[in-house]
Amino acid sequence: MSDVKSDIEIARAAKKKPIQEIGEKLSIPRDHLLPYGHDKAKVTADFIKSLEGRPDGNLILVTAVNPTPAGEGKTTTTVGLGDGLNAIGKKATICIREASLGPNFGVKGGAAGGGLAQIVPMEDMNLHFTGDIHAIGTAHNLLSAMIDNHIYYDNEQGIDSRRITWPRVMDMNDRSLRHIAISLGGVTNGFVREDRFDITVASEVMAILCLATDLADLQERLGNIIIGQRRDKTPVTVKDIKAEGAMAVLLKDAIQPNLVQTLENNPAFVHGGPFANIAHGCNSVIATKTALKLSDYVVTEAGFGADLGAEKFLNIKCRKAGLNPKAVVLVATVRALKMNGGVAKDDLGTENVQAVKDGCANLGRHIENLKKFDVPVVVAINHFIKDTDAELQAVVDFAKQTGAEDAIVAKHWAKGSEGVTELAQKVVEVCESSRSAYKPLYPDEMGLVEKIETIAREIYRADGIEADSKIITQLKDWEKQGYGNLPVCMAKTQYSFSTDASKRGAPTGFKIPIREVRLSAGAGFVVVVCGSVMTMPGLPRKPAAESIRLNEQGQIEGLF
Amino acid sequence: MSDVKSDIEIARAAKKKPIQEIGEKLSIPRDHLLPYGHDKAKVTADFIKSLEGRPDGNLILVTAVNPTPAGEGKTTTTVGLGDGLNAIGKKATICIREASLGPNFGVKGGAAGGGLAQIVPMEDMNLHFTGDIHAIGTAHNLLSAMIDNHIYYDNEQGIDSRRITWPRVMDMNDRSLRHIAISLGGVTNGFVREDRFDITVASEVMAILCLATDLADLQERLGNIIIGQRRDKTPVTVKDIKAEGAMAVLLKDAIQPNLVQTLENNPAFVHGGPFANIAHGCNSVIATKTALKLSDYVVTEAGFGADLGAEKFLNIKCRKAGLNPKAVVLVATVRALKMNGGVAKDDLGTENVQAVKDGCANLGRHIENLKKFDVPVVVAINHFIKDTDAELQAVVDFAKQTGAEDAIVAKHWAKGSEGVTELAQKVVEVCESSRSAYKPLYPDEMGLVEKIETIAREIYRADGIEADSKIITQLKDWEKQGYGNLPVCMAKTQYSFSTDASKRGAPTGFKIPIREVRLSAGAGFVVVVCGSVMTMPGLPRKPAAESIRLNEQGQIEGLF
Repeated sequence: MSDVKSDIEIARAAKKKPIQEIGEKLSIPRDHLLPYGHDKAKVTADFIKSLEGRPDGNLILVTAVNPTPAGEGKTTTTVGLGDGLNAIGKKATICIREASLGPNFGVKGGAAGGGLAQIVPMEDMNLHFTGDIHAIGTAHNLLSAMIDNHIYYDNEQGIDSRRITWPRVMDMNDRSLRHIAISLGGVTNGFVREDRFDITVASEVMAILCLATDLADLQERLGNIIIGQRRDKTPVTVKDIKAEGAMAVLLKDAIQPNLVQTLENNPAFVHGGPFANIAHGCNSVIATKTALKLSDYVVTEAGFGADLGAEKFLNIKCRKAGLNPKAVVLVATVRALKMNGGVAKDDLGTENVQAVKDGCANLGRHIENLKKFDVPVVVAINHFIKDTDAELQAVVDFAKQTGAEDAIVAKHWAKGSEGVTELAQKVVEVCESSRSAYKPLYPDEMGLVEKIETIAREIYRADGIEADSKIITQLKDWEKQGYGNLPVCMAKTQYSFSTDASKRGAPTGFKIPIREVRLSAGAGFVVVVCGSVMTMPGLPRKPAAESIRLNEQGQIEGLF
Repeated sequence: MSDVKSDIEIARAAKKKPIQEIGEKLSIPRDHLLPYGHDKAKVTADFIKSLEGRPDGNLILVTAVNPTPAGEGKTTTTVGLGDGLNAIGKKATICIREASLGPNFGVKGGAAGGGLAQIVPMEDMNLHFTGDIHAIGTAHNLLSAMIDNHIYYDNEQGIDSRRITWPRVMDMNDRSLRHIAISLGGVTNGFVREDRFDITVASEVMAILCLATDLADLQERLGNIIIGQRRDKTPVTVKDIKAEGAMAVLLKDAIQPNLVQTLENNPAFVHGGPFANIAHGCNSVIATKTALKLSDYVVTEAGFGADLGAEKFLNIKCRKAGLNPKAVVLVATVRALKMNGGVAKDDLGTENVQAVKDGCANLGRHIENLKKFDVPVVVAINHFIKDTDAELQAVVDFAKQTGAEDAIVAKHWAKGSEGVTELAQKVVEVCESSRSAYKPLYPDEMGLVEKIETIAREIYRADGIEADSKIITQLKDWEKQGYGNLPVCMAKTQYSFSTDASKRGAPTGFKIPIREVRLSAGAGFVVVVCGSVMTMPGLPRKPAAESIRLNEQGQIEGLF
């Protein structure tokens, strides 16, 4: 294996073009590219505004089977397909999420993609990048400080300090901040209360930034955030605290999408990174819409497997942003399907066609689910070196039988765009055929409980949901308050269709227990928590940070 | 007054040049300017390294009399003098500190300079700028998380959780975080202990970044930080926690100085902003040294009045960085001297020559003090519109009698560089005369107590210091541990030579009480606290944030 280069070695050897040249591929004038160094830039809001009325390109979602420890390569396929579309002469742009900095100091950080299908600059994207997440954290914490300051002075709004739901945030894995007591130390430090820090990307501000259509919409949504309750249990919003203007000012740069490039010098927007459980897990609407105005094909992805990521992309992002996806690429690997078929990780290297066939039940259910949104599905089999022809053929046969447009082996990891031209051709054909008649799974008007039941039944194939009367009452109350038309955002394990992470494949005979519901009134969805949700990770016993340093050449060691 | 434009109006009307053109004035190749938008850039560490061995330009410190509510205009004079030097044909660069974001949401933010002597882009400099302070906060908080993580697992170092002195930080005015309890909520959240948040710029990481000579030196200094004690009271350093490498990686961009421009398109480095009480209050050594390699004249400033700012600049920054200042410009205003002479703020508009003469006692003491460092002093009288000729003449006469090289009225606020050419000429003459024989006030070898006494006697003119035996013992202990050769960093009110803020002018007959001493082993100084020190501000009853928003034109309202 010594001649196989690591992702970071490949990324460092990349022949990056000046970001202005990447912008030129999309006809972005240099004045409207705000550079951050020579290889990153933001596209100005003014330029984005000038694009109004232009026709949109074709939107392609890349999603995947349920994740396993074997790895599926969803981002790698997203990047590879983008390069492949450019290679066959199409003007294509990639849109993915940006990474949180904090977790890289716990466990080693990752590439955006892998092998010959990567987005660069990799180091920057794992560190401060263009400062978006710092800006989000600052806007979030300004609101936190203003809430306690409001109480410290006259508390004109009558905020009940026991019922403040707005935490503080930090972009760090810091378990000590999960549960704290603040305002200790006497009168001048305020009123003592309990509080917590979440990791910054879990902030509702991140979800809002990713769903806002422009800065004015962002400010409006920030104003709608509910931060807690008064003594009479009425909700207190950010507008009541008068923080939305200052928060929007802090986010005026962060809302502008970041342009970077693939190893093959094709344009990629990397912008926004909301949690995929308590939020919708997609890059920003602004980036996606801008890319659609500037290119004929836009390849994007969503967090986790298709049961969570694609469902939220289609039911939340596309619905709210008025997007019309033309095709879904569903990524599977022989290895992942084998694990879904019951093979242990250590045995993945041995050919096992039957296990692949068994594991295809997971793939099949995702294909069926996606077709419920009336979008055509192309299966991409992300090739690994030990896959056998018989195993690959089993997946192809199964996928075609189950209603996929096609199933195509893609070798972008090893070969870059030349390994993925067949997939690219197929995607183009599907898009041009206008076979997509995208519609969300449920209408806005459906009740909140019914929306949850619909997803549980149609996507998870559960026998129903289980929820306390307290939760049902809460949902009904929100409907009365005018929030009934919001979509629901499911927070569930990504490893299974069920809420039991160990149930791979296509489990049946289970119910979905609802533990808790939360209203993200600014982002515009109701979060439905179906398991434990961790919003502040901790560092491991031996954090990656202990090994991270700059070597003599000024290169970063230990981060990857 | 309606035809007098505000600082922000002037700044917005500035005809900024692309930052690459500003870099060209200093012969910085475009490849070595890392742009942040079109009007800000960082100078690469590689380029800075390539400058080694080049001769240095002339370093000029701008300092001031003790601050009063009347305003002195130290930064305005720094900027004006830089423009003035360029106007008379000299290649001059300005070096000032960068501002903390948080406080601008409490009380309105400020310009860098004022009137026609400003540095732009003003909005960015009051917001995220190039992200340096975010990077500092992240590096700081990574260490905090690693300390608690170390204890959470095996606590191999035997850290005494009651004696951790390393807080957490946030760039926000948030009084609720001044005193907190962390790790509540059970076993998986760690061991409960008390903690605090400081505002980010109060972090020792900021002081270190501003005193480090390069990234390797930064990493070494970070490693030397003492974060607390073991049960046996021995100090625990960052190296013991193995955090210095990762912290340096987080700071690799932040350590590169930021280039911006004045309204007259002259180069300015705005880099680093340590507290002027618990730290040394000067912009980064790297910025100052880089500017000296790239220009014939470098104009810089230090926080507060000359008793604190200049003393620390000369005793800490110049000593440690091997800088040789050629001249000190001491800024005074007729208004400030009147207040030092006993006039109330409301009466400043009336001519009062006697009060000016009385207030000159403050100016005189600063002149005498500065001459103890063997640097020539030029007094700059920052002109205000209501100053009378008789008042101005009184200052000029006094300054010359007291040993200043000259005292010159400067009108840069109203006229830009053309109002300050006489001062610029005089400064050039003084620099070229080689009259400076800069030496620090005390040698490295002097004991810590004696260093404090020397400053109290020679600078403050106190009758001595008052300190508990506990404090004296602590200082002696540090001497035994090898820290005796460090300079001392005085934290005292900036409003008086004494520790009583109400004693303006040139008070006598007082002692300096030492409340507390702190070892900043990474930055390399011993902090001597002579009064209350606030390291986390609060928001006021009506925070500026409530009025901050973007208007229809996308301009920021309420921030200034």
